[in-house]
Amino acid sequence: MGLWEGLFAARTQRMKASDIREAFKLAERGDIISFAGGFPSPETFPLDEVAEVAEGVARQMGATSLQYGPTEGLYELRELIAHRMTGEGVPCRPEEVLLTNGSQQALDLIAKVTLDPGDAVIVEKPGYIGGISAFGNYEAAFWPIPLDDDGLQVSFLEERLLENRAGNGRPGSGPKLCYVVPNFQNPSGVTLSEERRRRLVELAVRFGFAVVEDNPYGEIRFEGSPRPHVKSFDGDGRVLYLGSYSKVAFPGLRVGYVIGPEDVIRKMAIAKQGTDLCSNTFGQKLIVECEKRGLLQRHLRSIIDVYRRKRDLMIEAMGEHFPKEVHWTYPEGGFFIWVTLPEGMDAKEMLPRAVAEERVAYVSGGAFFTDGSGPNTIRLAYSQAPDEWIVEGIRRLGAFLKREMARRKAGARPAGKPPLEQEIGELSRTF
Amino acid sequence: MGLWEGLFAARTQRMKASDIREAFKLAERGDIISFAGGFPSPETFPLDEVAEVAEGVARQMGATSLQYGPTEGLYELRELIAHRMTGEGVPCRPEEVLLTNGSQQALDLIAKVTLDPGDAVIVEKPGYIGGISAFGNYEAAFWPIPLDDDGLQVSFLEERLLENRAGNGRPGSGPKLCYVVPNFQNPSGVTLSEERRRRLVELAVRFGFAVVEDNPYGEIRFEGSPRPHVKSFDGDGRVLYLGSYSKVAFPGLRVGYVIGPEDVIRKMAIAKQGTDLCSNTFGQKLIVECEKRGLLQRHLRSIIDVYRRKRDLMIEAMGEHFPKEVHWTYPEGGFFIWVTLPEGMDAKEMLPRAVAEERVAYVSGGAFFTDGSGPNTIRLAYSQAPDEWIVEGIRRLGAFLKREMARRKAGARPAGKPPLEQEIGELSRTF
Repeated sequence: MGLWEGLFAARTQRMKASDIREAFKLAERGDIISFAGGFPSPETFPLDEVAEVAEGVARQMGATSLQYGPTEGLYELRELIAHRMTGEGVPCRPEEVLLTNGSQQALDLIAKVTLDPGDAVIVEKPGYIGGISAFGNYEAAFWPIPLDDDGLQVSFLEERLLENRAGNGRPGSGPKLCYVVPNFQNPSGVTLSEERRRRLVELAVRFGFAVVEDNPYGEIRFEGSPRPHVKSFDGDGRVLYLGSYSKVAFPGLRVGYVIGPEDVIRKMAIAKQGTDLCSNTFGQKLIVECEKRGLLQRHLRSIIDVYRRKRDLMIEAMGEHFPKEVHWTYPEGGFFIWVTLPEGMDAKEMLPRAVAEERVAYVSGGAFFTDGSGPNTIRLAYSQAPDEWIVEGIRRLGAFLKREMARRKAGARPAGKPPLEQEIGELSRTF
Repeated sequence: MGLWEGLFAARTQRMKASDIREAFKLAERGDIISFAGGFPSPETFPLDEVAEVAEGVARQMGATSLQYGPTEGLYELRELIAHRMTGEGVPCRPEEVLLTNGSQQALDLIAKVTLDPGDAVIVEKPGYIGGISAFGNYEAAFWPIPLDDDGLQVSFLEERLLENRAGNGRPGSGPKLCYVVPNFQNPSGVTLSEERRRRLVELAVRFGFAVVEDNPYGEIRFEGSPRPHVKSFDGDGRVLYLGSYSKVAFPGLRVGYVIGPEDVIRKMAIAKQGTDLCSNTFGQKLIVECEKRGLLQRHLRSIIDVYRRKRDLMIEAMGEHFPKEVHWTYPEGGFFIWVTLPEGMDAKEMLPRAVAEERVAYVSGGAFFTDGSGPNTIRLAYSQAPDEWIVEGIRRLGAFLKREMARRKAGARPAGKPPLEQEIGELSRTF
């Protein structure tokens, strides 16, 4: 590695394996109940129907679908997306849609075309780790703004912006981007209120930044009415809207998209040329065929019921088994519940013991903070575990948390190295 | 665009649409004979057999293949690649293989983990435009080193390195990477000699840079014996080897790979997490199934015959129809012939007239130079055009070149704006 140490870029020093990604490895072990990965539930995939559509697509896989495709993605799918978004209050044309390898690639391309080292990006605190990595890989400086039950605290952001303008910041040191996941946020599960969406765009205009609205979970709403998209308040093309087929449909196809002003989309398409030339066409064609059959809409209705039931099961079990000093959010949709333990507890340090003693896993929340805070937080995903595991896993986690709290009160530190620590070391691996 | 001008990164000012990519649009027009796009010939795709395999993969598309996959790619395919490469003199394990969205993504990831703005990268002159974009997007400073019929002029490179060391360069200003396409290079068609491969690695050791060996065309050899891979001379893990299924098989699947030391591969996998989480699994599974059936090996044998015939047709037609002042390379494999026109001719400026007057298109060679040179060069791809079009297109191009040379001698500039210029403007579009 000596040779390469001298060859790595400055940005590479900041790159570390995502705790989540590493936690996925645990999820593969059948004897551990994992609430770590925010994967869609495989039991919800309409496998027979998808296989039938996929066979059809495969059978028609002519020379065109095996050849390089347009960098911007299949026009047919861009049309479908533009049509749907126009119906949702975001009028747009296919030329304003860029298809990407999941919306993660859209995050990477946005960072690539906008960020010079040290440029400031407003992020939610806690924020989506994939967004933080994408921007961090281009050496962003983060402005973490705390959330409450109504999402990003826009007043807090305004204060910060005014302070910066008043002289605490150099000229031009204001943020370039504000990155938000407005619906059923990952990791917190909270949703940005309508009023704050409007005010966020006003702030963006006043302080000259762009907004990146990342909405992978928006359609998975269990109750209440949908809030208007942040981009629906966009008067001058400063909001980039990111959507994904990975949560509602199939993550393995890697189909996401970004909507924005045509000139910005063209810039991102040029950046994509240098990044991977074009995306795979099979996944895009499969989505088009599924949409034509109405398969995705039908599927969406059924998964909403599945995930609502899973959320209810988890919330109910938490009420029953968690110590009363522990607090958590109540998501109206999506995949995640955010848990806050008493101050002083360290969820990352506890994880190996949770796995060793109770065979239950979670993501420690610190990974979602850019400022080293949040050691006493946990993200639980109810999306993937089978129903009976949710109840049993929460029972185990509750018992574990009670034991940890009793240990702390007694001033005792668990003795020795739990047998699984080595094995779990991967979870906190950093390069 | 005013708003966004202030938000774009420095690197974005350098991004421009690839002349090649734009030239693809011409290829779609049925009335123009295009030698522009370096696409594999669609007539070579074993469509029935692929469709059969794809149907099988689709039928088995269970929950796993629709779910997020490992960032590093399917282990099964990594094994197959490691096994093959070991047989080709590059001993490696699956852990040293990272699957990417075509090898273009490998170029992007290498740039991402190694390049700080201003870092020097040795490139071939002329060099592959996708590599130049990938490195350019991370603000590389290029060291273009000329080619001759035996590929990169390694002696010239050595002089340049010694000069730099002797004080013409700041300390640490030596190059970090040397990017080469050693077999049937894009765009020149030339192949790096065995002796130079060995010496290139020696120089890399002596001057502390890494080598990026990009080999998409190596298997498509028409005659002569294969040269050992540059990486086969690699004693200390400083050569990254890039392979692709896009030329031998199917570009639309987006399956490429990079082989390197495990620690570097892990860094690139972390960078890939922030870039797109993982690649699509369908394409990878399809390749695995095709490999198991031996379909790709059989396919390779048949396409070698097809492309050899196309090369022969083009070379023969060039001998017959091109003016004697024009020179060209003789590729032993791959897709490309490189044409040098007399000094003073400007292939980019001529292109709209070639299309308007003769309905024939090429890529003007200047795009492959990082130093603004090469205006009198042309890349011709024989890979995609049907046989009869090759003969007819070269006849037309020959007639056009003769006319252009006569015009130059007569001191005449073609009058007015050819009717197609507007339409072809896209070809030279820069942002």
